[in-house]
Amino acid sequence: MAFIQSLPLSSMNTLAKSGGAWLISPSLATALRRMSVAGFATSSSSASSPNWEGGVSMVQGASRGIGLEFVRQLLEKNNEGYVVATCRNPKEATSLSDLKNRFSERLFIQKLDVTDEATIEESAESVRERYGSLNLLINATGILSIPGVLQPETTLNKVEKSSLMLAYEVNAVGPILVMKHMWPLLKAGGGSGTDREVAVVANLSARVGSIGDNRLGGWHSYRASKTALNQLTKNVSVELGRRKDPVVCILLHPGTVDTDLSRPFQRNVPEGKLFTREYSVQKLLHIINNAKKQDNGKFFAWDGQEIPW
Amino acid sequence: MAFIQSLPLSSMNTLAKSGGAWLISPSLATALRRMSVAGFATSSSSASSPNWEGGVSMVQGASRGIGLEFVRQLLEKNNEGYVVATCRNPKEATSLSDLKNRFSERLFIQKLDVTDEATIEESAESVRERYGSLNLLINATGILSIPGVLQPETTLNKVEKSSLMLAYEVNAVGPILVMKHMWPLLKAGGGSGTDREVAVVANLSARVGSIGDNRLGGWHSYRASKTALNQLTKNVSVELGRRKDPVVCILLHPGTVDTDLSRPFQRNVPEGKLFTREYSVQKLLHIINNAKKQDNGKFFAWDGQEIPW
Repeated sequence: MAFIQSLPLSSMNTLAKSGGAWLISPSLATALRRMSVAGFATSSSSASSPNWEGGVSMVQGASRGIGLEFVRQLLEKNNEGYVVATCRNPKEATSLSDLKNRFSERLFIQKLDVTDEATIEESAESVRERYGSLNLLINATGILSIPGVLQPETTLNKVEKSSLMLAYEVNAVGPILVMKHMWPLLKAGGGSGTDREVAVVANLSARVGSIGDNRLGGWHSYRASKTALNQLTKNVSVELGRRKDPVVCILLHPGTVDTDLSRPFQRNVPEGKLFTREYSVQKLLHIINNAKKQDNGKFFAWDGQEIPW
Repeated sequence: MAFIQSLPLSSMNTLAKSGGAWLISPSLATALRRMSVAGFATSSSSASSPNWEGGVSMVQGASRGIGLEFVRQLLEKNNEGYVVATCRNPKEATSLSDLKNRFSERLFIQKLDVTDEATIEESAESVRERYGSLNLLINATGILSIPGVLQPETTLNKVEKSSLMLAYEVNAVGPILVMKHMWPLLKAGGGSGTDREVAVVANLSARVGSIGDNRLGGWHSYRASKTALNQLTKNVSVELGRRKDPVVCILLHPGTVDTDLSRPFQRNVPEGKLFTREYSVQKLLHIINNAKKQDNGKFFAWDGQEIPW
C-alpha cells in the first residue's frame, strides 16, 4: 500500500479509471475519501459523489435464488464494480462464500435481516464506512410459502392473519425500510462510476401483485404484499422526483423463474415460461442498466413491457 | 308475543311484508326460522335464503364518522331493514346507543375489533343466530393517524415499521378477515329482501390508495394499506365471481369527508371539496343500492366514477 500512498493524490483518479482492479483496499479508499473531505482531491467527483469505477451495488436478499444470481452476474459479467451482498445468515450462505473466494476485493457480504431494522441501519453504516455511496440497490427478498407457516391461499376461507402480516413484513415493509436507510448513500452515488445518469433502486415485485391484471384470485398474502410494495415504491419515486435526487425507483417482474420460491408451483407454468435464473436476471439487468429518469416509478416485466397497477 | 304465536305460520310472511315494523323479536324470528328448517314454512324463501324485509346490513366500524352515518341513513331513510352496527367498545358508543333508543327492533349493536379475529368470529356467530344471513357488509373502519402512535408520513425518512404494520392490520387485514367470516352469511342472504339481485360487500378505500393516481407521495402507511385492501377486495371478487355466489365486492372512495379521521388534514382541502358525512354516505348508498354483478371488483368514487388502480 506504500506504493499507492507515495503517488500524487491527483493520479488516483487515473488509476481508478484504468479499467483494472482497484489497487487499494476499500478501507484505504475510505481514508482517502476522508482526506478529500479535508481538502485533498482524490477524484474528479466531489466528495459527496464518490466515484467507484463500475459503481457500488447492493443486492439485498442475496444468499440464493434471483438475488444470488444478480450478485453472480454483477461480478462475472463486468470487470469492475463492487457488490454488497446481504443475507440473514452470512455463515450459511455457501454460494456467496464461493463467490467471495473468486472476487475477494469486489464482493462484500453483509448481514441484513429485513425484519430487523437494526441490521438494516448497521448495513447502511457499514456501506457508508466502506464505500460512502451506492449506485444500485436491488431488493430481492421475498417470501411466498414456508412449510407449516405460510401457505399461498387457494380460497378466502384459508386466509390467516399471521400469513398476511408476515408476507407484508418481509415483502413490503422490509424493502421500504432498506430504501429509507440506503437513501443517503444512493443520493451520494447517483450514476457516478456507471454508464447511467442516476442511481437505481430496483424492487423485485411480481405480476400477481397487479390489481388490474388479477384474473385468477388466490395467494392473498403474497399478492397484497407485492401490491403494497408497488405502492410504496411508487410513493418513494414521487418524492425522489420532486426532490430531483439522482435516483430512480423501478419495480421488476422477473417472470416465473426456477427458484426455491417457485418450485412448489411450477407444475402449472406453461412450457417455455419457466425461466432460468440466468435468463431472467440477464433481462432484468438490461432494464436496470438502461434505467433513465423517465422510468422513475414504473413497473416493468422481464421483457421491458410495463405492467398495469 | 302470544298474539304472534297463535297466528297460522303461513301468515307470517304477509305480516313481514306489510311494510310496518316487525312485530316479532329477532330471537322469535330465529326460532321460527329453525322451525322452517324443521319443515314449517315461515317465508316464501328457502331456509338457506332467509328473507328479512329490507335486508340485513352490517356496518363494521360504526361508532363514529362515516360508519355511524351509514347506520343512521340505513335506519332513517328506510322504513324497514335491519342493521348490525359493530364497534370495539359498544358501551362507549353513545351515538349508536341514541340510535338504538329510536330503532330498538331494527338496530343490533355488536362488539367487533378488527385486530382480534375471535371477535369477528363471535360477530358472525351472533348474526347467524339472530338473522341467519346478511345482504350488505360495509367495512368502514380505517386509521390514518393516532397521536403519538401513527402519524401520516411526509417523507421516506419518517417511515416507521410499527406504523406500516398497524395501518395494514387495521385497514387491510381487518376487512378481509371480516369478509372471510361473513361470507357464508352473505351467500345465504344474496339480494333477498332488497331491491338488488346480490348481496354487497362495500369496503371503504380511498383515492390515495390508487397507485396510478399517486402524484403527491407521502402517507406511506395509509396509502399502502388501502392499496393492499384494493388488491384483497379485487382478489375476493374474482373468487366470488368464479363460484357464482350472489355476492359482489366493491371498493368505495368517499371523498374527503368531515370526520375525526380527516380533521387534522382539512386545511389543504379545496373549497367545496370537504363533504359532510350526510352527503358522502348518501352518494355511497346510491352506488351500493344499485350494485350489479358486473360491478364486482370495481373501485368507485362517491360520484360513481371508477378510480384507476
